[in-house]
Amino acid sequence: MRQNEAPSATATLAAFVADTSWADVAAQGHDAKRAVLNFFATALGSARDPAVTSALRAVSVFGGKATSAIIGRAERLDPLGAGFVNAISANLLDFDDTHMETIIHPAAPVAAPVLALAEAGRYSGREVLTAFILGVEVECRIGNAVSPGHYARGWHITSTCGVFGAAAACAKLLGLPADGIANAIGIAASQSAGIVENLPSAAKNVSVGNAARNGLFAALLAEQGYEAAPFAIEGPLGWARAMGDVPDMERMLGGLGESFELAKNTYKPYPAGIVFHAVIDACFKLRGRLGGSVGRIAAITVRGSALLLARGDRAVRNERDARVSIHHCAAVALLVGAAGVEEFSQAAVVRPDVIALRQKVRAELDPSLPDGAASVEIALLSGETLNETVMAAHGSLADPLSDADIEAKLRTCLRHGGADWDEEGIIDAVWRLDTLDDISSLMNAPRANHSTASTGAG
Amino acid sequence: MRQNEAPSATATLAAFVADTSWADVAAQGHDAKRAVLNFFATALGSARDPAVTSALRAVSVFGGKATSAIIGRAERLDPLGAGFVNAISANLLDFDDTHMETIIHPAAPVAAPVLALAEAGRYSGREVLTAFILGVEVECRIGNAVSPGHYARGWHITSTCGVFGAAAACAKLLGLPADGIANAIGIAASQSAGIVENLPSAAKNVSVGNAARNGLFAALLAEQGYEAAPFAIEGPLGWARAMGDVPDMERMLGGLGESFELAKNTYKPYPAGIVFHAVIDACFKLRGRLGGSVGRIAAITVRGSALLLARGDRAVRNERDARVSIHHCAAVALLVGAAGVEEFSQAAVVRPDVIALRQKVRAELDPSLPDGAASVEIALLSGETLNETVMAAHGSLADPLSDADIEAKLRTCLRHGGADWDEEGIIDAVWRLDTLDDISSLMNAPRANHSTASTGAG
Repeated sequence: MRQNEAPSATATLAAFVADTSWADVAAQGHDAKRAVLNFFATALGSARDPAVTSALRAVSVFGGKATSAIIGRAERLDPLGAGFVNAISANLLDFDDTHMETIIHPAAPVAAPVLALAEAGRYSGREVLTAFILGVEVECRIGNAVSPGHYARGWHITSTCGVFGAAAACAKLLGLPADGIANAIGIAASQSAGIVENLPSAAKNVSVGNAARNGLFAALLAEQGYEAAPFAIEGPLGWARAMGDVPDMERMLGGLGESFELAKNTYKPYPAGIVFHAVIDACFKLRGRLGGSVGRIAAITVRGSALLLARGDRAVRNERDARVSIHHCAAVALLVGAAGVEEFSQAAVVRPDVIALRQKVRAELDPSLPDGAASVEIALLSGETLNETVMAAHGSLADPLSDADIEAKLRTCLRHGGADWDEEGIIDAVWRLDTLDDISSLMNAPRANHSTASTGAG
Repeated sequence: MRQNEAPSATATLAAFVADTSWADVAAQGHDAKRAVLNFFATALGSARDPAVTSALRAVSVFGGKATSAIIGRAERLDPLGAGFVNAISANLLDFDDTHMETIIHPAAPVAAPVLALAEAGRYSGREVLTAFILGVEVECRIGNAVSPGHYARGWHITSTCGVFGAAAACAKLLGLPADGIANAIGIAASQSAGIVENLPSAAKNVSVGNAARNGLFAALLAEQGYEAAPFAIEGPLGWARAMGDVPDMERMLGGLGESFELAKNTYKPYPAGIVFHAVIDACFKLRGRLGGSVGRIAAITVRGSALLLARGDRAVRNERDARVSIHHCAAVALLVGAAGVEEFSQAAVVRPDVIALRQKVRAELDPSLPDGAASVEIALLSGETLNETVMAAHGSLADPLSDADIEAKLRTCLRHGGADWDEEGIIDAVWRLDTLDDISSLMNAPRANHSTASTGAG
């Protein structure tokens, strides 16, 4: 009864998405380009990963007309398949963007289907940016309403909320009216899935890819007249409560159009869990003070919040473990003085000197430190101790990556991923996205071995 | 730690599925054929429903090679698309089978992808039956472990557990080894979705169709080497707990291979919610006692459990409402003396005499009656009252539909759905399924207008 007094969440979000045009969000355009550039960076970094190749094969078994690029590769798939695979590769290195309030990685599930659909339908760069900005808005606001309980209960929030963002963005791109967008968001509520237990396995990729694929699918169904319950998100037997939360409707809907969640998006300098970045930064400082001579280290104590310890105090058997290991992050930062994709590769995981240094690391709770901060203490063989505390890691909103940092990240990722795409062509196309008449000039950025045929497209 | 002492649920279920052959489940073959026949009946009954046509169009936008039949129609789709659409049409009338312990409708999400995949791959009838029996087993056992809390919390259990059955059945059909089947089931845990709030809308169809589509997709991913966490179902951040339940592992795994859940499957004589069947049966008895003269009725009181009242005491605006309305069920049973697909059509919903009789119905709690039972009392204008109580409705395990009843149901559904498929060809092919070398002779049952070319296939 109470619900009938106010419009539903899907109706409110949908009306906002329907009524918002490029002019309304142009101020968010540069933030969106940063997110898209970082999206390409991480997708390129995983372009040849076996998990991407396997996903590509599985989708190809019964794939439709190949209209859309697989980022960094020569294969093409239909938009559902390309959205699925590109969302996977963009998220695979744990190097994608982070919305700190929810720990959602916003771009992968939204940008992937939007770009795949836009390439097939030859949409403009402004249409793509508008849809992307609004999709991220819907995704993160729904996440805000159920955070932090949702993730803590075992829901992989990038997957479970990403599908809403993908649905809203694709419905916007398809030009659906407000009620069609509301239906797409409501249909997404019946497709929202993904569990934390599966994060250490390839099944994580499936839920991230599905957020993209099923979000686009929700929009296609809504376009064909499929409807959803008005209170699919906040109703008594709806998405939020079934998932275990009473949604905070003010956090979901308050100030819609006044502030944008994309402005709170952050970009990682290191392909590791976001909470480990302060550990790495502290170790970089300590390495400087040691002059790089790690042979002098007797023991390393990393102190942080319960979140840091819960996520990061673990055995390291493979790359997935390394990216969420206090021990590995501290070891490579001190030993190598770098924490890039190479330092989290399987080769680094099994390096004897890394293993030896990992074994000197001990994690300890310091409840006085907030989430995202870390304190590292080194006991030297001499008996001396060195200490560094980092409250705001590089890449956080307080110390964000510059545009040039994200460009450099893309170049590194592209080389790591072995992609033969033209890195400068992609970078240029992303910064000029709002001027491109046809997104296909981005998705078909000239290959590197075709040299700098920069006049070729768009 | 405790978990490591025993194999995981996915490993146990997968080993069972991998090690079970047709010879082990041949005793369940007839039960399976009944389920498949009922599956065809309900799919044929909705073959031309707008919800099916819309789903078909949405899937076709980017569909792959059209290898597999859409039941009752001329179109064909790739197995993912055909599995999606056929699961929707089989469930759309609320006329499909019911596993009472969980209220799962087992066949739609499992038979649809198995048949679609089998048609594309030219599998034999025995392979199909074996995969189907095992898929239903996995689906219902996982449902048992979280019932009744799971559904009550807002999860549409046919969707959320159907994806496990589809994954296991398709992985079996594809011939994956035990670890591949375990991965398919574990990947399904990251794809399990569907909420009760959306049941009165077409978004319900999406989650039922997705259970089929995503279950097959999980098997394809597992075939390509995708893995899942061993404890994806029962782990601390796994499927069951994220969904809100501590799973009852004994109900999930106890006596595996000794008893089969398919033996507990039931078939509805009426296309209405299963809890309303006793109401209809009681009204049929009362109609007999009244000699059909409903003009003598002053008031109708329906008594039943809290479940009956919670689900069925509602306004009736459309067909979906009618199928779960105490008032509508009682009215058509008393007025028409029938409760078939015609009595739950929109035409019946708006019939003035049905509306008038619906308005005489009142629902009342009788906590002494178990779920599935109902007591109906009629107060006549004369002051006399008549009473009938039904403890086990027609179609329940205590009073099951005969094979001939299910055949008759298929014929009625086919005509209702306007399908031009040859009904006798389908009925014959289902009963002979274990002798068919190639399932395509069932899925391509000669069309009615090609007369009785019964020697054409298989």
